[in-house]
Amino acid sequence: MFNHPYLAGLLGNDSVSRYFDAEMDIQAMLSFEAALAEAQGVTGAIPIAAVAPIKTACLELVPDMDRLKSGTANDGVVVPELVRQLKISVSDEHKAYVHFGATSQDVIDTSLMLRLRSCIEIIEETLERVVVQIEQLNEKFGDRQLLGRTRMQQALPITVSHRLANWRTPLTKQLEKLKSVKVALLNVQFGGPVGTLDNFQEAGPKIRSKMSELLGLGDPGGCWHTDRTSIVDFANWLSVLTGVLGKIGKDITLMSINEVKEISLRGGGGSSAMPHKQNPIKAEMLVTLGQFNAMNMSGMHQVLSHENERSGQSWTLEWMLLPQMVMTTSTSLRLAEELLIKIERIGDDNLN
Amino acid sequence: MFNHPYLAGLLGNDSVSRYFDAEMDIQAMLSFEAALAEAQGVTGAIPIAAVAPIKTACLELVPDMDRLKSGTANDGVVVPELVRQLKISVSDEHKAYVHFGATSQDVIDTSLMLRLRSCIEIIEETLERVVVQIEQLNEKFGDRQLLGRTRMQQALPITVSHRLANWRTPLTKQLEKLKSVKVALLNVQFGGPVGTLDNFQEAGPKIRSKMSELLGLGDPGGCWHTDRTSIVDFANWLSVLTGVLGKIGKDITLMSINEVKEISLRGGGGSSAMPHKQNPIKAEMLVTLGQFNAMNMSGMHQVLSHENERSGQSWTLEWMLLPQMVMTTSTSLRLAEELLIKIERIGDDNLN
Amino acid sequence: MFNHPYLAGLLGNDSVSRYFDAEMDIQAMLSFEAALAEAQGVTGAIPIAAVAPIKTACLELVPDMDRLKSGTANDGVVVPELVRQLKISVSDEHKAYVHFGATSQDVIDTSLMLRLRSCIEIIEETLERVVVQIEQLNEKFGDRQLLGRTRMQQALPITVSHRLANWRTPLTKQLEKLKSVKVALLNVQFGGPVGTLDNFQEAGPKIRSKMSELLGLGDPGGCWHTDRTSIVDFANWLSVLTGVLGKIGKDITLMSINEVKEISLRGGGGSSAMPHKQNPIKAEMLVTLGQFNAMNMSGMHQVLSHENERSGQSWTLEWMLLPQMVMTTSTSLRLAEELLIKIERIGDDNLN
Amino acid sequence: MFNHPYLAGLLGNDSVSRYFDAEMDIQAMLSFEAALAEAQGVTGAIPIAAVAPIKTACLELVPDMDRLKSGTANDGVVVPELVRQLKISVSDEHKAYVHFGATSQDVIDTSLMLRLRSCIEIIEETLERVVVQIEQLNEKFGDRQLLGRTRMQQALPITVSHRLANWRTPLTKQLEKLKSVKVALLNVQFGGPVGTLDNFQEAGPKIRSKMSELLGLGDPGGCWHTDRTSIVDFANWLSVLTGVLGKIGKDITLMSINEVKEISLRGGGGSSAMPHKQNPIKAEMLVTLGQFNAMNMSGMHQVLSHENERSGQSWTLEWMLLPQMVMTTSTSLRLAEELLIKIERIGDDNLN
Repeated sequence: MFNHPYLAGLLGNDSVSRYFDAEMDIQAMLSFEAALAEAQGVTGAIPIAAVAPIKTACLELVPDMDRLKSGTANDGVVVPELVRQLKISVSDEHKAYVHFGATSQDVIDTSLMLRLRSCIEIIEETLERVVVQIEQLNEKFGDRQLLGRTRMQQALPITVSHRLANWRTPLTKQLEKLKSVKVALLNVQFGGPVGTLDNFQEAGPKIRSKMSELLGLGDPGGCWHTDRTSIVDFANWLSVLTGVLGKIGKDITLMSINEVKEISLRGGGGSSAMPHKQNPIKAEMLVTLGQFNAMNMSGMHQVLSHENERSGQSWTLEWMLLPQMVMTTSTSLRLAEELLIKIERIGDDNLN
Repeated sequence: MFNHPYLAGLLGNDSVSRYFDAEMDIQAMLSFEAALAEAQGVTGAIPIAAVAPIKTACLELVPDMDRLKSGTANDGVVVPELVRQLKISVSDEHKAYVHFGATSQDVIDTSLMLRLRSCIEIIEETLERVVVQIEQLNEKFGDRQLLGRTRMQQALPITVSHRLANWRTPLTKQLEKLKSVKVALLNVQFGGPVGTLDNFQEAGPKIRSKMSELLGLGDPGGCWHTDRTSIVDFANWLSVLTGVLGKIGKDITLMSINEVKEISLRGGGGSSAMPHKQNPIKAEMLVTLGQFNAMNMSGMHQVLSHENERSGQSWTLEWMLLPQMVMTTSTSLRLAEELLIKIERIGDDNLN
Repeated sequence: MFNHPYLAGLLGNDSVSRYFDAEMDIQAMLSFEAALAEAQGVTGAIPIAAVAPIKTACLELVPDMDRLKSGTANDGVVVPELVRQLKISVSDEHKAYVHFGATSQDVIDTSLMLRLRSCIEIIEETLERVVVQIEQLNEKFGDRQLLGRTRMQQALPITVSHRLANWRTPLTKQLEKLKSVKVALLNVQFGGPVGTLDNFQEAGPKIRSKMSELLGLGDPGGCWHTDRTSIVDFANWLSVLTGVLGKIGKDITLMSINEVKEISLRGGGGSSAMPHKQNPIKAEMLVTLGQFNAMNMSGMHQVLSHENERSGQSWTLEWMLLPQMVMTTSTSLRLAEELLIKIERIGDDNLN
Repeated sequence: MFNHPYLAGLLGNDSVSRYFDAEMDIQAMLSFEAALAEAQGVTGAIPIAAVAPIKTACLELVPDMDRLKSGTANDGVVVPELVRQLKISVSDEHKAYVHFGATSQDVIDTSLMLRLRSCIEIIEETLERVVVQIEQLNEKFGDRQLLGRTRMQQALPITVSHRLANWRTPLTKQLEKLKSVKVALLNVQFGGPVGTLDNFQEAGPKIRSKMSELLGLGDPGGCWHTDRTSIVDFANWLSVLTGVLGKIGKDITLMSINEVKEISLRGGGGSSAMPHKQNPIKAEMLVTLGQFNAMNMSGMHQVLSHENERSGQSWTLEWMLLPQMVMTTSTSLRLAEELLIKIERIGDDNLN
């Protein structure tokens, strides 16, 4: 959907989807391997002479995608084959220090965090703009009136300002909450095969700390291979956001009903059969995307039950869900922005 | 399930379920009505003379449950009929000041918050005890070894302490997060028919503030009829918790496999056909309850799309979901506590 | 919700909820034990002299509910304790033949089927009446016109008959599909501890066949302890039905919008704050109940992964979900019937 | 996931994913437009002279993908822009007969059915092979013994044949049920703007019948724009299938536990950190894919509430869900086939 040649026009967001491309993932994984080598060199866990060759190999690797695909099919993760390719261009002397003491999950989880950091930046900026748009609508139309409605029936008149405040307030709360969500989320992963960093004794935490610094991520103070709570909390944040945008979308579809006409939108979707129609497509999509994310939450919470020291089952399920939740959210925000800008009038003309 | 004559033995938690009884709900709704009258008397919104008779009526009401049932069937909410019954024992002079300027949602949402406050106290205390239990297990068995396992296969030896830290860490994070969850959640609801408190002009916020004080809830600074984000965030907190407990349960079922025997439990469930068996029932239930809450999250996120000023559809869906999520969580904690106390041994005897 | 003193007025259905009471379950489980004894007596698996005393014990048992509760808490199932109580009133000579060769799951699954049979009868009859009601509406209003709407916008005029056909057709399809759903579902369960009936050699299938006959259920030709596909298909049938009723409910809420007024309903819910309102409560509830069942489907499909010969985890999850799906469906049908009867007019008065 | 350069090695199925490519969709939509013209020519709804030019245009269209993308962004569906492009190469005389009397949903739904027909063929054939594989395993290992396990604990010995029958039986039931699922599902969609075919009077059903014949789909006897029940029943079929495969996967992961070793698999996934490991990757993925489809069921059931004559909200949600459910199912079957072929031994060597 998000990358489909034409459906992406409706449901995609190019500025975010590229972070889920294979290329971006590989680049982020190589950043991990480079930072790992550097941190291990600095802390004496590997010979300092090995660092430069490994970093060069990370920079210069042209991955063999066919082999990455068959490797992933066999191993369930891309990392063993990626590391094998990486080692080819490192001399025998230093080869053993590539990916030293790390495990696949360290690489993949850290790559995810590096890319989520960028996605969140875009999401945050778009959300801020959406909030500003609502404030601008309030300046223009806030004093006008429309009928407050409860349980789908006319209740009492309210101001447009009141309705808009109900749109804006939960969005500004999301912006506020994002601060702690980011701190809890955007951490390096480094635990080694079973999460203990046993290979490194006391150097382990120092390596992790140095890697955090190099990669611009937080140091979680431990390994979170099986602790996906911050990821689930982030998913919840995403879906609360799209739920709130879904409320805005639903309101607009209802305000757009021909007989109700409490809102006017520039443009609107055409119909192959009825040229007279102006469908509130983007408003509908806000509802759809909210429902889609809502559904994904049940899967995300299943992900928490990581048996033992690593669950291939739960972890792979997370791979299937989180990227589509991030994409859904970024698309929903894009559409919200495009939709709000098209509002030419809010308020019931009979009351104003 | 939670109140079933015998299934509640397995799946219930009496100390919490009583907060979802009709009696408790009515009592909390009457507390709202009493606090409303008092706050309105104090702020001059209603005659001070009306306060005492209304408070007395709230204290003394013996609700006619049959009429509450038929009223709810007709109105979709219990409040109109409850208010009608309340007014009967108030003199004509003061009758008009019962439930003055409030709407059903104000009453029901505030009643929910009063009762959730008590539920959360119990949940928090039990969670604290569970964390202590894990720490005690760590003191007893932490130095022993067992095989770390990834993707369901033996990996490398770890200490029991490492496994237990993976159980404890996300639980202590939940305790920490609960602080802000409670502040965001436990607020009074007071908005009147369409959320504007228009009846009261400037007195509105003062009444709300006074009510908060009287009821021991927070003053949200506005009305949140359609903003269910804090409720969804609370549901997320509940389900993250049961997901983490589900991980503990899954680990214990796997450690209990006869050939694996990395754990010994006192007791365990009997079988009607195979008396030799010791089934790790409570561990299984932690998995089940985690899955149940996970599923409910998709419904809870649907709840966010409150069309217009109040959605009967979304609000009722919330009624169907949130109580069972609270119950599931409190049961899961009860079972976790009962299960952990039965652990007689952790660690692989071949390694120790 | 479904048994709550006043919420059940809105969300319950007494005629169906009683089948999920403890008493009905116990009675059905005792029917299983009686039929088992009789079938085993007839086929020579137990002494014929043991049959009458066991059947008498089943008839006369006054269960000790407290012990059933603590037994369930311990064993995860009620059956071991129930069988213990049953054996008390059977002489030592015949005691061993109570529950002979059966396992808890045989008893509980068969009890479920006996009770679902009755629930389905009620559901089917109500659904038939709902279809007839739509046909009667068609006779009264079918020739009138209203505006067809797509994507929430006016499209082209249609007849009321066309709209009603879109309501009725999927319902009649559900009635048709119910036939095969029932055949696949309503079967006896008899497999013994691990599903093999090994105790009985060739007599096993004969006992199962005789039990089916005695209980009026189908003989599945094997044991389905871990095969929950027919139960999930039934759940799907329930949720498709409530989804279709949800579409009717959603249509009616939209047709009821004050400015649209394509429908008139007698009655409608009152508001505690706005006496002039007529809320389309029952239509809203159809939407809510459809969403609730939809959500439960994700849980029901999780239930399919019964590890090994019996999964306590999955099976208990099924217990938590299926009864509430049956209740939701029967309530939705009750409300649909009550709602359709209140329709006084359909069609756009400007077009007619 | 399903088309990702390397993750598709694990989670994709090329033979099925191509049916969800834009090219295949466009080709199927053009088949609809060609069949529509031919059926309308034959039945006299459009001039017979218009048929050949329209069919030629359908054959020769080289779609402008950029415009399709921006058209979809604007209209919410690709069809208005596709029809515009199609009309360019048809002479003015016949232009008006392109897409005559049809609506976007007719085109898109029929395209889906044409492509699902092919996907189902592949799914059915793979499922048949999986059943045969289980039968072959039964021939090889059926007489061996292993420990039956209930509630994660050893119960009593069973034959491998018994375990395999529990795998096979629900799969053969799925094959049987697929027959009626296909008949209910694979139908042409033709209803025009609001589903009435009003443009055509009595010719409408004849056109639809002729189109069905030309396209090799069933004639549903009406329009099913808002009736998504057959699609949801199909989704249920898919998810029941992956749930059953998930049970097989879960069993294999448990049988593969080092201490249990009731099964031996050739190959198995490698680890970047622990070369000694043989991870049961494909078995894990069966669990994951079953959970993923299960989750999607809650969304699919939301799709049933199509308000009025067409819901853009619900329909687009269906687009987001159904393709990924088909892909998940076809991948799960591919993995099941690859996994079963690798089984070198089943049964407990201590018992045999």
